[in-house]
Order: sequence, then C-alpha cells, then structure tokens
Amino acid sequence: MQIPEAVKNSLSKWIKDTGPAGDVVITSRIRLARNLNDYPFPSRLSIKGRKEIVDKVDLAVNDESFDTDIHKMHAVRLEELPAVQRQIMVEKHLISPQHARSEDEGGRAVLLTDDETVAVMVNEEDHLRIQVLLPGLQLNEAWKTASQVDSALETKLTYAFNENLGYLTCCPTNVGTGLRASVMVHLPGLAMTQQLNKVLNALSKVGLAVRGLYGEGTEAVGNLFQISNQVTLGRSEEDIIKNLFSVMKKIMEQERSSREMLLEGGTGVRLKDRIWRAYGILSNARIINSHEALSLLSDLRLGIDMEVVDHVDAKILNEMMVLIQPAFLQYIAGQEMSGDERDVFRADIIRQRVCRK
Amino acid sequence: MQIPEAVKNSLSKWIKDTGPAGDVVITSRIRLARNLNDYPFPSRLSIKGRKEIVDKVDLAVNDESFDTDIHKMHAVRLEELPAVQRQIMVEKHLISPQHARSEDEGGRAVLLTDDETVAVMVNEEDHLRIQVLLPGLQLNEAWKTASQVDSALETKLTYAFNENLGYLTCCPTNVGTGLRASVMVHLPGLAMTQQLNKVLNALSKVGLAVRGLYGEGTEAVGNLFQISNQVTLGRSEEDIIKNLFSVMKKIMEQERSSREMLLEGGTGVRLKDRIWRAYGILSNARIINSHEALSLLSDLRLGIDMEVVDHVDAKILNEMMVLIQPAFLQYIAGQEMSGDERDVFRADIIRQRVCRK
Repeated sequence: MQIPEAVKNSLSKWIKDTGPAGDVVITSRIRLARNLNDYPFPSRLSIKGRKEIVDKVDLAVNDESFDTDIHKMHAVRLEELPAVQRQIMVEKHLISPQHARSEDEGGRAVLLTDDETVAVMVNEEDHLRIQVLLPGLQLNEAWKTASQVDSALETKLTYAFNENLGYLTCCPTNVGTGLRASVMVHLPGLAMTQQLNKVLNALSKVGLAVRGLYGEGTEAVGNLFQISNQVTLGRSEEDIIKNLFSVMKKIMEQERSSREMLLEGGTGVRLKDRIWRAYGILSNARIINSHEALSLLSDLRLGIDMEVVDHVDAKILNEMMVLIQPAFLQYIAGQEMSGDERDVFRADIIRQRVCRK
Repeated sequence: MQIPEAVKNSLSKWIKDTGPAGDVVITSRIRLARNLNDYPFPSRLSIKGRKEIVDKVDLAVNDESFDTDIHKMHAVRLEELPAVQRQIMVEKHLISPQHARSEDEGGRAVLLTDDETVAVMVNEEDHLRIQVLLPGLQLNEAWKTASQVDSALETKLTYAFNENLGYLTCCPTNVGTGLRASVMVHLPGLAMTQQLNKVLNALSKVGLAVRGLYGEGTEAVGNLFQISNQVTLGRSEEDIIKNLFSVMKKIMEQERSSREMLLEGGTGVRLKDRIWRAYGILSNARIINSHEALSLLSDLRLGIDMEVVDHVDAKILNEMMVLIQPAFLQYIAGQEMSGDERDVFRADIIRQRVCRK
C-alpha cells in the first residue's frame, strides 16, 4: 500500500519539514486564548449562540479587508465532518481531542491556513484559540504570526479584555496574555543517560510544565515531551517566550552533550546497536502497535540526528508520529479497520517509508 | 571483518551443506563405541598406555592396506593443539567437550577425514568412538560409512567383544551394538504450536532420548534438539536405525503440518512478523549474544524453509550455529576476545552473512 500523494500533500507544514535545532526540537507552538465581549463562554452558550460566533468569525476572515499578510484561512465546521476526519485533525495537532468530540452538537469550527501552520479553534474552551505550529525551534516566528492573526481578528471582533487582568478567558489559568508557548522536544539522550527526571523536575521550578506527546495527562512515548509556560498573567508575551527560549537553549545543550557522551567509549556500540535494531525492526516488522513504533522511531531519529544512520530522512519521525495514528491509517487505507488490522497496516506504511528501496 | 576463505574451507561437510529433509533434519549422526581387547578402558589407563593406543591406531589408518573406500584419515593428537583449536572441534561437533579437556594429560587423539564427515575419538570414554556426521536425514548413509570404518579398523585392531553381550564398552548403556544413532532436528513449528512437550515426551516411550544442542545436560536453544536411541543391547544395528528413521518420518510430518497451520489464517501474519523481525535484528544488530542469535537464526531458518524469506541461504543456520561460538569467533578474529568483544564480533559476522548486499 503506497501512501497516496493526496495524503502526503494534506500533511501540515510541521509534519513535512524539520526546522532550526530540529535535532532536539520537533515543533514550536504559540497559542492565544481569546473571547468575544458580547457572549458567555462556549460552555455556557447554546448551540445557536455558538453557531452565531462561528458565522461571525467566518465572515471576519473572509472579509476583503482582512489582513492579507496572513495566508487565507478557511473555516471548517466540525459537525459537517465525519468523526475520522475530526480525529485526523487531532492527530495533526490542529485541534484538541475535546474539540473533536462535537457529534450531535454543532457550533464548533476551526479556521485553517492552507499549510495548516495557523489553526484557530472556534468555541473550544474559549471562543477563539489561535494556534501557530512551526517545525523546529521557531518560537519568535510563531509568536509573530500568532500576533498578526490576533491583530487581524481584533480589527473585526471585539475581545473580552480588562485593563487590570488583560484578556479574559474561561479558565483563570489563561487570564492575562492568554498565551501558551510550547515546544515539542525529543530527548532520547537525557532519557538514556538517566538524567531526564532531574532535568524535567528543574523545569517546574522556572514556571514551565512538561507533558507527554498528546497533551495533558498523556504518557511520554518515544521520548517526546511538550514543554510550555504555566504563567500567563503578570508577564509580557515577550518575556514568556524569552524565558522558554532560553530554557530550551540549555536543554538542547544538555541533550546534545548526553548524546555525544553516549557515542563515546564503551557505550557507543550499545547506542549503535539500539539504533540499528530499531531500524531493523521498523524495516521488517509485519505487525506493530503505535507505542512500539514510536519508541523505535525515536531511536531511529536519534540515529539519524547523530549520523549513525544516513539513508533515512530525519522528518520520518514527524511524519510517522502522525501517519501511524488510528484515524490517519484508516484515512490512508480508505476503510475502517480493527486494531489488529491497523497494526498490520501500520507496519506496512512504516516499512515502505523506512526501507531504502 | 570478512570470514577468511581458509576458515570457510575448514568447515565440516555437515556445516557447509544441507541434506535430504533439511527443512527439519539438520544432521544425522552414527556413533560406534569400540574398545581394544588388550587394554583397560581409558579412564583406567596411564598416559603411557593411552599414547600406545594412539600410536597403534595412527599406524593402522596409515597402513597401505587400510581400506581405501574410506577417505584417508589423519590423526590429531589433542595435547599438541592449543585449547582454542580443541574447542573449535567441539563447536564443529567433532569431539566431545570432555575429550577437549586434555590439557596436561596427553594420550588423546581424534582421527579425521578431510571433509570431517568421519571423526574417530581415541581414548575418550572408550578407546574408539567412531562418528559419522552427515547433513540432513542420512542415517543409512552414515551407518554405511561408520560400518566401513569399523570393519577397516577391525582388520588392524582386535576389539573387545563378547559372544553374548556384543561389543564391550566402558559404560554398560553402550554395551551390545555400541551404536548411537542420532539426528539434530529443528522444530520451531511444534514449539510455536505448543506441541513440543507432547511430541518429545512420546519419544521416550519408544526408547529414544531428547537433548539440547550441545549434548547431554544442555539447554535446547533455537528449537534445536538431538534425538537418539537409548537401547544398544538386544537389537540389531539395522533395527535401531530403522526405528529412529521411522519416528523421524512422523516428526517431520508433524513439524511440517504445524508450520503449514501457522501460515494459515490469522496466525500467518504473526509468523511472518516474527520471521521478518528476526531477519531485521540479525541484519542490523551491533551486539548479540549466542543465545539470542540462535533463537533468531531459528526463526530466520524457518522463514527460509517456508519460503517467507527467499534471499538468504538455508545453510546459514548450520554455518552460524558453529561460527558464532566463542572459540570459532576468536579463531576467525585471530585473537583472544572478552565476552563483550565476542558479542560485537558475533553481530558483525552475522550481519555480513545475512545482509543481501
């Protein structure tokens, strides 16, 4: 089974590209929480009220006078999508799992640019959740784009804003800047040298939170972690981003020196063994679950970044992280599949992508 | 590291070839225990006495009138060999581990044909242990050759023989024919379908013994088993061999039908997954111990025999079974190696042999 071109083309920019410092930082994400002045928060709104907001926002971004520096956004009304398509958006990290659960409700939407760098959830926890997702360490670039989208929307919509508190949000933890800056990092070196807990614990002391791959409450699979700010109030957006950026610089240093340490001396061959075994299994298995696949892809990606493996493209991890998820697999296959069937199909997809032939 | 041609050439015939029914039967072995009339058993002999026997036997096989139907045999005096070379003979299944432990003793030897099909241990438990080892199921052929060697030796030496008991041997379990007929079989199908214990238990009821790869008291690694007769007294050689042969025919049937069963239906992809993962690890690992290697080689060989894998030679199992053992590895490397070093070198040797390039 080949991955159809249409599927490849439908991948978000962050999946198709690696960015600056891509050996450690998979993605940078800026999210702004915003609410409209004249409406209750979405959880207290009727379907009718929510639909009114969706229409209003759709109209705003389609207005001719809407800021043309931003790529054109189109609104996707989630109730019009089959469940599998909503799930694919979750797997691409464009919307939250909560936002995807819109069956029998209506009045929820997402605005997307063509390259899916910008995704604005409408009527999730807040009326607007502006997200910019870029490959690699590009917090400033993401912030710049998010800020542009925010300003453009503000010319058309009236935000709920308080002189003392800043932007008002449904959950008090988001009040103020409404900003969450986060990076998804790949830390196999720190994990293998048993330094991960030490490093991650230190982050909480500087106001940062660490979570697994798919957001709050999810397990860290494949040595992939999301690091983000916890404080949104009392600091400027630039400060929040600067703080995360400087912490990331340090973590990158530590991760890179762990990797170098692992390649030196007697542990070098152990690391190479682990990397090549991962390659061997990924390129030959006929059944694989997503947990094992991500663990092995993590090892393989480490091997690519450390130039142990040179014939596989580094972005395989980004791509596969998304493509091997349940909904995406069924989308590629063009049919519903049981868990067992997905494990077989996942192995096919990975093998095809990993093998050099 | 390439395997030198000299090493490849030094491999016994059973290692270099697969034989009839080679999908299940790796080797057939006939062993005859014989003692000389005028001497106590080796354990009760002085070094001088043992050396006298070695000289006598050496002289016998070098006599011009010695039966020319048998390939020429040359005597190797074990005390003249370094320990690693004696160990290599054990790993090639030419002599027993006991026979290899000849340091500071002397008076032990082995007679070998050039292709190492015939190996006669001199002064192991008995004065003579004539062994014929052939690839595949060739019990009759091995018996024919063993019988020829036996007759040829008997023209030159006087055997300890009793009209009522037959050939006299050190251990009473060998008295009579002095014959042990054995086959080394590869039974992954029966193992995977959980039928192994049932089948192996049934063997003891028909007077057969089952042991692991390296003889008595060794563990069964890689689904490899040695099956041999226990009774040597009161039955003719032909009867013993016929009995083992007919049991083998049944086991082959059962093993083959287990394999077919495994490939059918839902288990087929599981079996293929197991086989291809074994291939993937063997062709990529950088560190591997002999236990894991044999297990994976067993899976790979099954895949070759079942035509799941078609680009690897079936005799890889025979070859690697021997080449990846400690002494052989050091022989190939031309140096002493620690256990860790051997695990790395073993992975190199296997990778080179398994990879298609």
